[in-house]
Amino acid sequence: MHGISTRLAEFASGEIAPSKRTCEIIRLSLADWAACGLAGVNEPVAKITRDMILAERGAGASVVFGGGVAPARAAALVNGATSHALDFDDTHFLHIGHPSVVIFPAVLAIAQERNLPGAQMMEAAALGFEASARIGAWLGRGHYEAGFHQTATAGSFGATLACGRLIGLTAVQMQHALGICATRASGLKSQFGTMGKPYNAGLAASNAIETVTLAALGFTSRLDGLECVQGFGDTHAGIADMSAFDDLGEVWVTESVSHKFHACCHGTHAALEALHLAEAGMRTDDVARVDIRTNPRWARVCNIAVATTGLEAKFSYRMTTAMALLGRVTGRADQFEDGFCVQADAMDMAAKVHVEFVGHIAETAAEVIVTDVHGRAHHAEFDLASPLPIAALEQRLDVKLSNLVGAGTAAKLAEAAREMQNAASVDELAALLAG
Amino acid sequence: MHGISTRLAEFASGEIAPSKRTCEIIRLSLADWAACGLAGVNEPVAKITRDMILAERGAGASVVFGGGVAPARAAALVNGATSHALDFDDTHFLHIGHPSVVIFPAVLAIAQERNLPGAQMMEAAALGFEASARIGAWLGRGHYEAGFHQTATAGSFGATLACGRLIGLTAVQMQHALGICATRASGLKSQFGTMGKPYNAGLAASNAIETVTLAALGFTSRLDGLECVQGFGDTHAGIADMSAFDDLGEVWVTESVSHKFHACCHGTHAALEALHLAEAGMRTDDVARVDIRTNPRWARVCNIAVATTGLEAKFSYRMTTAMALLGRVTGRADQFEDGFCVQADAMDMAAKVHVEFVGHIAETAAEVIVTDVHGRAHHAEFDLASPLPIAALEQRLDVKLSNLVGAGTAAKLAEAAREMQNAASVDELAALLAG
Repeated sequence: MHGISTRLAEFASGEIAPSKRTCEIIRLSLADWAACGLAGVNEPVAKITRDMILAERGAGASVVFGGGVAPARAAALVNGATSHALDFDDTHFLHIGHPSVVIFPAVLAIAQERNLPGAQMMEAAALGFEASARIGAWLGRGHYEAGFHQTATAGSFGATLACGRLIGLTAVQMQHALGICATRASGLKSQFGTMGKPYNAGLAASNAIETVTLAALGFTSRLDGLECVQGFGDTHAGIADMSAFDDLGEVWVTESVSHKFHACCHGTHAALEALHLAEAGMRTDDVARVDIRTNPRWARVCNIAVATTGLEAKFSYRMTTAMALLGRVTGRADQFEDGFCVQADAMDMAAKVHVEFVGHIAETAAEVIVTDVHGRAHHAEFDLASPLPIAALEQRLDVKLSNLVGAGTAAKLAEAAREMQNAASVDELAALLAG
Repeated sequence: MHGISTRLAEFASGEIAPSKRTCEIIRLSLADWAACGLAGVNEPVAKITRDMILAERGAGASVVFGGGVAPARAAALVNGATSHALDFDDTHFLHIGHPSVVIFPAVLAIAQERNLPGAQMMEAAALGFEASARIGAWLGRGHYEAGFHQTATAGSFGATLACGRLIGLTAVQMQHALGICATRASGLKSQFGTMGKPYNAGLAASNAIETVTLAALGFTSRLDGLECVQGFGDTHAGIADMSAFDDLGEVWVTESVSHKFHACCHGTHAALEALHLAEAGMRTDDVARVDIRTNPRWARVCNIAVATTGLEAKFSYRMTTAMALLGRVTGRADQFEDGFCVQADAMDMAAKVHVEFVGHIAETAAEVIVTDVHGRAHHAEFDLASPLPIAALEQRLDVKLSNLVGAGTAAKLAEAAREMQNAASVDELAALLAG
């Protein structure tokens, strides 16, 4: 029986046929990713990594967010960190990670450096998303709970396969690249709340370019670095869930990538979506009480009872609910202000919200009951794991991107992503990253 | 009570007073390291990493082994991989790692880039050696046995402190640099036997330059990334042996760095040293039997019973003993030839060697009994952990370096290392690396 490194390498170097929805998701995620990066260019972690890389003045064709070019290995580091700086990019729950912020910086940097057509980059990106999610699932929740940041760890391997395909590695070279990645990949969850979190995305993207560049030059490592005794999985609390690869290539789990529409903790999103459904058309003054039920995982993540700052509001079911009911756009980072939290109407509304944690509700789901002043209960549920139809998703992303980077830029990004499939190069999108 | 990150950061940014022997060791290790790198420039891993970095054509002043300059972060990667390619560099048994191949590539690259005086680089190197060994001991044998390569892991942190001192980080910036390192450091032992092993040294050296550069630019991470819950130690099977730091700054464990004098597996070295003492003056024809006793750890490392190739000879007590008794210089890599192993005299001599593994003998030690044709037993013991006096060490390194790079270059390296303490820059030594 083949090991998983062989299986993944053969998959990544052979014919692949991403599903239609997968291709649509990649297109939408590309524009979403670019917008997150543009909106993040002035974040400290973005400036700092950019300063480091541009000071090295390497010769390269890969654009970095905010302007300037660098060698692919360096640009990927900056672009990963920059696009994850606001933590507003997409998520894959099976992966337990953020695919866009690792895969796109890596494949875009290589596509520019080698002047590859857009369709080739998009195909490699689909592969990278899919492989990251599968490898993340193989490492499993045990890996995440032990303290590893799947975005960076599984992401490094997924991006390695994507970049390996893009530069035409053979299956065996691809295995060596995975082997190199086994000794290079890293990323800890204890960095959350610091610049280390977005940096983790950048280092994963950069790792991938390093591993495939070395493999292409003849670097040989283990052929089974992921799964061997004391390989990456073994040493990093991986649970080695082989079912993660059962239908690889047939079913595309990339279809269930989830996008963020609210500029606050992901744990609050299902409740905000359910709230939106439950309160549809209700007057603010008519709301008497809101009950939120969700998974106990979030009890110590985003349940600040009395949020008094914009930052605290992002981690508060009560305050995000108050914002939504009072007509604030939770999709805009600038709406999470300190001032709002101490307004009388906000505090009054927040006090009407009751949160309960219930084991049988999925981590990705929430139930909301809005009771009006007439005693009528309006009930709705939402599960982030249930995919939105593409048209609905596209509409919501249009609104998100307009809020994030302005309608003009949002339209250009969406257009560049749409045209990518037929573009002779990736230059049009890349030029937009310079801002 | 302060955490270890605070303690290490304060140590690294304050006054330090390396012992006299430590300074001598650093000087000797510097020349030894440079010779190992020069001898390794044509190894595939050296060529490959050099090709990758030089293709990026970054602007920098840091020389790479074999010629060319690169940004410090890039040069350190090449120089770490190149100098560890032959696996002939120094070892520290407390560290459970190779200090030179991580610390020197890092501090030398920065000293060149910033045009710092030699004494400053040597002081930083002493700090880096000491910190790596202490952090390696804190991570402990549990970390090593779980599959992590201390050279790369503890090495990244030690080199971070050395480089942080060199660029003048404050103690708090130094803590952030350690925090960044916590999410960046990696390196697996399952890469042994592949190019991944020397690459691990290079990535550690490069990590250090990245972490201190980012910290200097204002990157903030955790202040306790090494020791926090789910920090580096916790997630990487560290045993958190606090006694590792008991006498930090007072006792310099760098004094017990061990140098390799034989171009074969380190497990065979104590036996070769003891053999040399036991057979002193004996005629080859007079040897009837050799008994070697050493620690059981080596039974599956370097006890190939019948070695038929030069590579196998490096992992064979019997064949290395035969080489030494037949007058072959085990300090020369080119002496480990396939042809020798199948010579009648070599096979006959190897057959006279008996190896026994005894639990009470230290891992670093061996006992050898040479019985002559008259039935007389000549007994000797050797422990690599017992430090050689500096004069004896220097003499042996002179021979080693001459064998490795020729007497002329060896003398220049030794001279450059000797003059480093008074040198206005590190340029003279750096120029020698170009070869």
